[in-house]
Amino acid sequence: MRTSIATVSLSGSLTEKLTAAARAGFDGVEIFENDLLASPLTPEEIRARCADLGLSIDLYQPMRDVEAVPEEEFARTLRRARAKFALMNRLGADTVLVCSSVSPLAVDDDALAAGQLHRLAGLAEDFGIRVAYEALAWGRHVSTYDHAWRIVEAAGHPALGTCLDSFHILSRSSGPEDLKAVADIPGEKIFFLQLADAPLLGMDVLQWSRHHRCFPGQGGFDVPDLVRRVLRTGYDGPLSLEVFNDVFRQADAGPTAVDARRSLLMLQEEAGLGTLPERVVPTGIAFAELVTPDAEPVTALLGTLGFARTARHRGKPVELWEQGEARVLVNTGPADLPHSRRRSSGGTATDGTRLAAVGLESPDPAGAARRAEALLAPVLPRRRAVGDAPLDAVAAPDGTELFLCATHRPGLPDWRADFEDLPHPPAAAPGDRGGPVRIDHLSLTQPWHHFDEAVLFHRGVLGLEARESVDVADPYGLLRSRAVTTADGAVRIPLTVGAAPGDDTAHARHLALATGDVVAAARRFTEAGGRLLPIPANYYDDLAARFEFADGELETYRELGILYDRDAYGEFRHCYTRTVGRVFFELVQRDGGYQGYGALNAPVRLAAQHAAR
Amino acid sequence: MRTSIATVSLSGSLTEKLTAAARAGFDGVEIFENDLLASPLTPEEIRARCADLGLSIDLYQPMRDVEAVPEEEFARTLRRARAKFALMNRLGADTVLVCSSVSPLAVDDDALAAGQLHRLAGLAEDFGIRVAYEALAWGRHVSTYDHAWRIVEAAGHPALGTCLDSFHILSRSSGPEDLKAVADIPGEKIFFLQLADAPLLGMDVLQWSRHHRCFPGQGGFDVPDLVRRVLRTGYDGPLSLEVFNDVFRQADAGPTAVDARRSLLMLQEEAGLGTLPERVVPTGIAFAELVTPDAEPVTALLGTLGFARTARHRGKPVELWEQGEARVLVNTGPADLPHSRRRSSGGTATDGTRLAAVGLESPDPAGAARRAEALLAPVLPRRRAVGDAPLDAVAAPDGTELFLCATHRPGLPDWRADFEDLPHPPAAAPGDRGGPVRIDHLSLTQPWHHFDEAVLFHRGVLGLEARESVDVADPYGLLRSRAVTTADGAVRIPLTVGAAPGDDTAHARHLALATGDVVAAARRFTEAGGRLLPIPANYYDDLAARFEFADGELETYRELGILYDRDAYGEFRHCYTRTVGRVFFELVQRDGGYQGYGALNAPVRLAAQHAAR
Repeated sequence: MRTSIATVSLSGSLTEKLTAAARAGFDGVEIFENDLLASPLTPEEIRARCADLGLSIDLYQPMRDVEAVPEEEFARTLRRARAKFALMNRLGADTVLVCSSVSPLAVDDDALAAGQLHRLAGLAEDFGIRVAYEALAWGRHVSTYDHAWRIVEAAGHPALGTCLDSFHILSRSSGPEDLKAVADIPGEKIFFLQLADAPLLGMDVLQWSRHHRCFPGQGGFDVPDLVRRVLRTGYDGPLSLEVFNDVFRQADAGPTAVDARRSLLMLQEEAGLGTLPERVVPTGIAFAELVTPDAEPVTALLGTLGFARTARHRGKPVELWEQGEARVLVNTGPADLPHSRRRSSGGTATDGTRLAAVGLESPDPAGAARRAEALLAPVLPRRRAVGDAPLDAVAAPDGTELFLCATHRPGLPDWRADFEDLPHPPAAAPGDRGGPVRIDHLSLTQPWHHFDEAVLFHRGVLGLEARESVDVADPYGLLRSRAVTTADGAVRIPLTVGAAPGDDTAHARHLALATGDVVAAARRFTEAGGRLLPIPANYYDDLAARFEFADGELETYRELGILYDRDAYGEFRHCYTRTVGRVFFELVQRDGGYQGYGALNAPVRLAAQHAAR
Repeated sequence: MRTSIATVSLSGSLTEKLTAAARAGFDGVEIFENDLLASPLTPEEIRARCADLGLSIDLYQPMRDVEAVPEEEFARTLRRARAKFALMNRLGADTVLVCSSVSPLAVDDDALAAGQLHRLAGLAEDFGIRVAYEALAWGRHVSTYDHAWRIVEAAGHPALGTCLDSFHILSRSSGPEDLKAVADIPGEKIFFLQLADAPLLGMDVLQWSRHHRCFPGQGGFDVPDLVRRVLRTGYDGPLSLEVFNDVFRQADAGPTAVDARRSLLMLQEEAGLGTLPERVVPTGIAFAELVTPDAEPVTALLGTLGFARTARHRGKPVELWEQGEARVLVNTGPADLPHSRRRSSGGTATDGTRLAAVGLESPDPAGAARRAEALLAPVLPRRRAVGDAPLDAVAAPDGTELFLCATHRPGLPDWRADFEDLPHPPAAAPGDRGGPVRIDHLSLTQPWHHFDEAVLFHRGVLGLEARESVDVADPYGLLRSRAVTTADGAVRIPLTVGAAPGDDTAHARHLALATGDVVAAARRFTEAGGRLLPIPANYYDDLAARFEFADGELETYRELGILYDRDAYGEFRHCYTRTVGRVFFELVQRDGGYQGYGALNAPVRLAAQHAAR
């Protein structure tokens, strides 16, 4: 189906918005009136610009408070409509949106509303324009889509139809029952379909709508269900995004437009319209890659953690450090980061040691890359080693490189083939003295403006599932964290966003290493000369008041700096190394199916990290 | 009365919070449990730190879901309480807060609740501690203050009282009727009073409470009324601020603490407790002062606008430019700005031409300065000229210098006495050819984190009234604007805040000059070689559709770039100069009592300014 986006959903001048929409692959736009009024381009120039960009102008909405008003008011509206319809002819836009009246002058009189809409449609017809009448969720007398449709039906004018808007419908809906009447509307009388999602905020609907809409799949509405219902009526107009969102108003238009179209591609797939390559869910974390101008501090830390340097890349300054199934690449090559976005707020810093790439074990790397590309992820040039092992990789919205790869798997090229083995001391047996055996999770700090985009990307492109969003109190502001994981927890990536744009660079990323015995692992680490993040004594006094521990257990945690949490499924014990550059490590012991990441302990950890700076 | 603040209301580490609270003059603190757990200081060290700073520890709140739970649960609570009471003894805190239970295990049984609270109070008494029981607005079975009081009364234990919290009470209140039962509580059984305001958001009360509380006077609750009622009961404990606010969590603790205490000082005045020096309301704008490293561009602009250089400061590189009652000082002295805050986000830029000071006509400059000082405004060193004219001045939260002064007023020192007249061409008669006759308003962009503080400051310190807050769509993000004015409009200062911290420096400030005939003034300006901000033709096509104008009127506006607005009271016509440094000028014509600032036109103006860069 054709896709469209309202210019109000994007940041910038009208020309910036149009360019971003076209580059992201939209077929059309709804032009928001303020964008047109503020533009130095004439309507003819805007029309030409859109045509050059391959964009149709699908909708214009200059009218307010049209129907069910006193005749004198309505006469003024017709006068205004005449001017706006002439403007639309200059623009080449053939559908005008009319939202249900919020005017205190409007009366509760469907017959009057239908009559006036009929007259407006008659005028529109003279200009070759169609009128799409939509119920605002906070309309004065008309606030539901079925009520709006009854008025359209009563008006009975060929140039008058209805516009359905997922926000206005779903924000008022208490269940699928409320959507049944969609089936009663003939598809050809649905002149337009506007789509937006929103988090379930339980707030005043007008403020909710104006500030907190988001792209489908980023909120809590079942937008696919509504789309399926609308399609069953025979509707064949565009799927158009109309999203009022304070953050999108500030963020760069280019990435927002890509995010928007990715959301529509996923929505079409969910609504049964899509032809996207199949989802390929990763089965584990193959490696994490650290880029650093100076390998010494971080490799010293890896050694202390029990990693051994096992191999070296055949063609690049990259070393492989291993311990059990945990693999870390240390890259001292130039940190040019061609695919990272430079955010206006400062962007991703390129200095110091940072977690820059993630290798995901994929049962079908090429298939996963095809899906990623179809979902607008920038596909990175295949890295080829002298041994010619291809590596499929895409860039995440924050610039992190995601390698879709396989380790020691029959029939699939092995990324390890690019590496030549180095002599190294015999590896500790997996789990020996609690040594880390695999990467439990990777915590990736996200740029401020694109958190919801990152979650949608990881769901759609990588086939991960998004867990609940949690607020975490950092001493200097609230953080928001949301994990994307596989169903079995083989891949866990908590995405975290800071309290303000400056936090892009303030918060380090981290690698959590799974161990079967965190106490042994912590002891081994400290005996090897490592220093764990000191945790305040007050924290342990509180643990003692909250839980009962075996004799000596709490004293051990206190001594080492191990944190403790418990959920309905099991227990979690974890501790942290100091930070190197913009990276630190966590040792974690998960028992009995614990699902979380110790969020309750995060404020204590964050304060300790601030104090340790 | 004693004043106190919860550490959760401030940003930073516990020690940073304590220091900020003490410096702002608070008598005590509520220590939030997470702040204690995350602190490397022992309870004894925290107690000593507070004592050194002159702060008492008025409240601790480590308990949740205490009452009306199964006996087995309650036994665990008592075990935990014992540890926490011991901790409180170490801290020297003698009041513990217990919020009404939200546990799914809690049952609707007041007798059980009273019995368990009685037992908890018995334990507390052994530690010399009092239990203050408070109804959370979203408590499972107890959500109103009168219900909480009935349970306390039924429990009948001397160590058990109630805690009243203005947010929990007023967020559920539909009017003064709901507050009548406050009078039924004996003052000595009100163990604590927590105060917070909040904007009237109509959202889920839990989210509202956790993210959007603000200091009294910054929201929509009638907090003074509640305080008066509580005081009438005989309550003599502290007035304590407990404010959960996402912005305060990020902002520097020092200014937030000052803002907090200023709010309590104003609240006490409103509640009839205060002994603040009387409010002195300014009667006009005496001058605006521009600080610039290079006077030429801005004085050229002033000349083109019709200003004449009339006088020079006797001791400093400051020139006075006048036209009618509009006076502008141009200061080429060193821009050291000692009182401006350097915000972490970048702060106020000191380069380029900027609007740095405002002279307010005051009927009693010394009295106004006394009030400002009592309300914690930094009093600036009196500027004395060779002629010895004293000038009272204070710094606004954003660093703008506010001079409290008088122009040509019998019995008051005249700031003009510091200036010596310069020969200049005969001034145009006021209003001649539409020439500006006075400063209509000064638009002051505010730093991101302290917008509510700025509004409170201008209300409390200067005695201005705050008007409605409006959202304005800039192409790159929403702005928020709120005017503070005198009742008669003689002083009008719209305060504006950008969409993100970076905007501190992105948006220029401006001076609006009142003229009786904006068309004449605009023509005079352009004939003198001035260039007005070009406004897109589309804007005028829209005006033509919305309003009827006299013949030729709209064409004149279109030619000159004049914008038009209308409200219930009258009409507004305005146009803008280009920006010099970080300042631009507006010419405005207000007719028939128009109250606003052309906010509807602001998106067009902002887009034009972005385009003109």
